[in-house]
Amino acid sequence: MIEQIEVKVDAQGLHDITKAVAELVAAKDLAEGLCTIFIQHTSASLVIQENYEPSARYDLEQWLNKLVPEDPSLYTHTTEGPDDMPAHIKSALTLTSIGIPIIEGKMVLGTWQGIFLWEHRHHPGTRKVLVHLS
Amino acid sequence: MIEQIEVKVDAQGLHDITKAVAELVAAKDLAEGLCTIFIQHTSASLVIQENYEPSARYDLEQWLNKLVPEDPSLYTHTTEGPDDMPAHIKSALTLTSIGIPIIEGKMVLGTWQGIFLWEHRHHPGTRKVLVHLS
Amino acid sequence: MIEQIEVKVDAQGLHDITKAVAELVAAKDLAEGLCTIFIQHTSASLVIQENYEPSARYDLEQWLNKLVPEDPSLYTHTTEGPDDMPAHIKSALTLTSIGIPIIEGKMVLGTWQGIFLWEHRHHPGTRKVLVHLS
Repeated sequence: MIEQIEVKVDAQGLHDITKAVAELVAAKDLAEGLCTIFIQHTSASLVIQENYEPSARYDLEQWLNKLVPEDPSLYTHTTEGPDDMPAHIKSALTLTSIGIPIIEGKMVLGTWQGIFLWEHRHHPGTRKVLVHLS
Repeated sequence: MIEQIEVKVDAQGLHDITKAVAELVAAKDLAEGLCTIFIQHTSASLVIQENYEPSARYDLEQWLNKLVPEDPSLYTHTTEGPDDMPAHIKSALTLTSIGIPIIEGKMVLGTWQGIFLWEHRHHPGTRKVLVHLS
Repeated sequence: MIEQIEVKVDAQGLHDITKAVAELVAAKDLAEGLCTIFIQHTSASLVIQENYEPSARYDLEQWLNKLVPEDPSLYTHTTEGPDDMPAHIKSALTLTSIGIPIIEGKMVLGTWQGIFLWEHRHHPGTRKVLVHLS
């Protein structure tokens, strides 16, 4: 009912997890159901976004980076590096969980929808995402 | 368990879908349950907002339009028109899915809560929303 | 299946509701499940955020207060006070519902994740949160 995905992130930005989630959904083969995705972090988040044009993701990232600058003079919580507090703010503005209906063993995403883990920090690492299927 | 709503949108802005969702929920007549609403787009989104004063929705729209200007000089993804990239950003800042508890055949929304599809583009069209009931 | 939490709020800001939700989850003792939290308001919202350093919450609040100023000259919906329209905008930018997987009677939150009710208005009061467990 609940599976974990470990997402290796190399850098800040959107990481496509659509395929990893779709494989878990396909394995359950539910006629109808709900896929709830949850990220276990406060400095990385989830977002459904355009899956086709990389330029759309690029602009989205640039826009948010400008809205929430990595400038320590703007924050008091600075001990974990200049990207830490902006990462918490960016996470608060995007999603921690998403619920997606399932029909005939597949998430019914729109044609242009991809599921992305949005890494807000710069260092490489592993992020944990839980997928609940019912 | 899963129903689809087609929402005709005539212009940019908040479109009230509370009644359409409530009718699907009422038809199921669940003693207790969960209604999960999912929008299949990346340039329109969902939001729960004040259902009474149109001025609150007006101000919300104006505020977001100012935060995310339709100015092609700010973006690289511009081939689909000046409202396309801002629409993706606005979608990322609002909701793609919402989970609302059901008691005695009704969503237990707060007194002032309405469910809105937020169209971020200008051209008229049809948007698809899925409603999962369990 | 559905429980209500009443959250007494004394002032604007993040109010930790992790323990209150965890107690409801523990009482159900589900081997596996999903906890869906829903707030019944449009001027208070939900957010998952850093649970350890108060400075992270402080910076998050300050940042959003600056992005959405309580300046009536910016809005037309001003009859309910200078904090009302900003409260609606802040709610639209954060979460109305969150879905969190449950394993062995506990929400599987990340180490640094706390669940917060974000009160966006200044006056003290009581806010209602619904918790659906399945």
